[in-house]
Amino acid sequence: MLSHVVGAAKRPTVCFRRGLQTVTLIPGDGIGPEISVAVMKIFESAKVPIQWEERNVTAIQGPGGRWMIPPDCKESMDRTLIGLKGPLKTPIAAGHPSMNLLLRKTFDLYANVRPCVSIEGYKTPYTDVDLVTIRENTEGEYSGIEHIIVDGVVQSIKLITEDASRRIAEYAFEYARNNQRNSVTAVHKANIMRMSDGLFLRKCREVAENFKDVKFTEMYLDTVCLNMVQDPTQFDVLVMPNLYGDILSDLCAGLIGGLGVTPSGNIGANGVAIFESVHGTAPDIAGLDMANPTALLLSAVMMLRHMGMHDYGKKIETACFDTIRDKKVLTGDLGGKSKCSEFTEEICRRV
Amino acid sequence: MLSHVVGAAKRPTVCFRRGLQTVTLIPGDGIGPEISVAVMKIFESAKVPIQWEERNVTAIQGPGGRWMIPPDCKESMDRTLIGLKGPLKTPIAAGHPSMNLLLRKTFDLYANVRPCVSIEGYKTPYTDVDLVTIRENTEGEYSGIEHIIVDGVVQSIKLITEDASRRIAEYAFEYARNNQRNSVTAVHKANIMRMSDGLFLRKCREVAENFKDVKFTEMYLDTVCLNMVQDPTQFDVLVMPNLYGDILSDLCAGLIGGLGVTPSGNIGANGVAIFESVHGTAPDIAGLDMANPTALLLSAVMMLRHMGMHDYGKKIETACFDTIRDKKVLTGDLGGKSKCSEFTEEICRRV
Ligand SMILES: CC(C)[C@H](C(=O)O)[C@@H](O)C(=O)O
Ligand SMILES: CC(C)[C@H](C(=O)O)[C@@H](O)C(=O)O
Repeated sequence: MLSHVVGAAKRPTVCFRRGLQTVTLIPGDGIGPEISVAVMKIFESAKVPIQWEERNVTAIQGPGGRWMIPPDCKESMDRTLIGLKGPLKTPIAAGHPSMNLLLRKTFDLYANVRPCVSIEGYKTPYTDVDLVTIRENTEGEYSGIEHIIVDGVVQSIKLITEDASRRIAEYAFEYARNNQRNSVTAVHKANIMRMSDGLFLRKCREVAENFKDVKFTEMYLDTVCLNMVQDPTQFDVLVMPNLYGDILSDLCAGLIGGLGVTPSGNIGANGVAIFESVHGTAPDIAGLDMANPTALLLSAVMMLRHMGMHDYGKKIETACFDTIRDKKVLTGDLGGKSKCSEFTEEICRRV
Repeated sequence: MLSHVVGAAKRPTVCFRRGLQTVTLIPGDGIGPEISVAVMKIFESAKVPIQWEERNVTAIQGPGGRWMIPPDCKESMDRTLIGLKGPLKTPIAAGHPSMNLLLRKTFDLYANVRPCVSIEGYKTPYTDVDLVTIRENTEGEYSGIEHIIVDGVVQSIKLITEDASRRIAEYAFEYARNNQRNSVTAVHKANIMRMSDGLFLRKCREVAENFKDVKFTEMYLDTVCLNMVQDPTQFDVLVMPNLYGDILSDLCAGLIGGLGVTPSGNIGANGVAIFESVHGTAPDIAGLDMANPTALLLSAVMMLRHMGMHDYGKKIETACFDTIRDKKVLTGDLGGKSKCSEFTEEICRRV
């Protein structure tokens, strides 16, 4: 599946050995395949005991015209429970929903988790950013329910449910507790959407009652945005409805260097999860061995932690951050002149 | 009405002379009255030929329980067409809608305009910010239409109309043309809300056809937020639906120093407009002569330009910016130790 990668590092042999955990790999479009190769090489160097099962994701139409992901990808994920995913192109014009969203929906990946931590050696106007956005990933403004009321009048429905609100609030507080974080801030516009954001906020307050060890605050989305660009160090764990998470996670990524260096995880019930780089497919540089694999690699590190492989995660993360701090072998977007494969080799050398 | 201001500058005599244009002044709550006094003093020093007509805004219930603004305020605005407004408290618990929103609605103030320009001498991580957010001010997520579908399932309706979308797009392009700005960016999530944001975007594209001298681009809201914190200088005029404007205008205010220094105007048809400081009422420092009147003053400067009094506007703006650049007489929030009245006197001295 990665055969169309030209100039990039050679693809490591995919092995199906016993005792290895299997992970579904969705290389994705554009630069997806070459950054996937980079991650596989680094994992091989670090001797991580997992094997990859590659699957393509293209939109297909099932019975009744319903859009679905390909059955062999669904079957793989249902078995492995864990996925790593590169960027997928999402053309508005294609007529089908974003495949990123369809994946989240298919596996009910209700929590989108994006840690934003300042990277030493990569200069931005901010230092010491260390926060996590936790986004409700299944409903809200992403319900997909829209109507034309009369000609020239359209409504979109923002759907907020008690169950999804409680579930994401619980996830956020559990996350805070398990990751030695001190506070959770609920982000909302309940002054405007009194019923929907009101419900979300009420569930956050209720769940907070069960986590007395974690500080709980609530804040308007606009106020969070304003305070975020003035002093992001005041924030810790933030939990919010779908659209606000989309906005805030990108804003926060911008503070530490952009989507090229920020990992992301989509978490469902019973351990199911897909980790993904959330940058675009960068078709202009695809296949040119110029892409930066950091976001996918750090997403893979999140995945290792999720799978309980903390030591492997730490080793790879350290090698990646050391390489960036060192500034000698960096891809173009990080301010260097090296190729994707050279950057990858450097990380391999260090693990 | 301002008699409860203690310690603040003495209130200038309000004069009703012929040949003066009348402006409705809504001092507002908390620090509202004292920053209003500051603006009136500065206007008096600059000999601006306007007279103020003060009106209180509290929520009252009309026939059938409908919330309205007090009739004497409505009557004043209907006559003067121009308002200047301090902050109003908006308690969620009060049961009535935000009075800020009710004012925008009552006078159909469909365009919320917030210029964000870096202030020399006031250090933030960003320099050379010079952009304007133009927010649709009447519909979208602020429709106020919400329902409980079944127990635990709530929907809020985002309403987008062709008319309001075209109107705000036209306003944005006219604004760009009249203010020597080069580009307009439409901010949207039409990849998710294909029908509603799709309609908004389509109207922007159509209007752009009639303004070939202004560059038109379109961008996802999340991408704008990310790029904004990385390099705000790439943006010029931004136009967007209601909620996105709420978020983005606060974010941008944060880049240049916060709501204490950013002006705002709400513009309707036929010249009707209310200019307002969009910071809070700061009840903790109300009456203590500590408030910073800059946001209200710069809003009043926007008002003067709207009224065609460019020279007075320029004079007052220059005096304000010179005072800030000079750093000798600043209020606490600006990093100084001076009182509101001292800061005001300093600006008066310079006009
Ligand atoms: C690709 C797009 C549909 C998606 C979203 O809007 O959620 C993206 O922006 C994200 O944040 O993962
Ligand atoms: C006061 C509040 C209702 C208002 C809004 O949400 O629009 C405010 O944040 C604003 O930006 O003017």
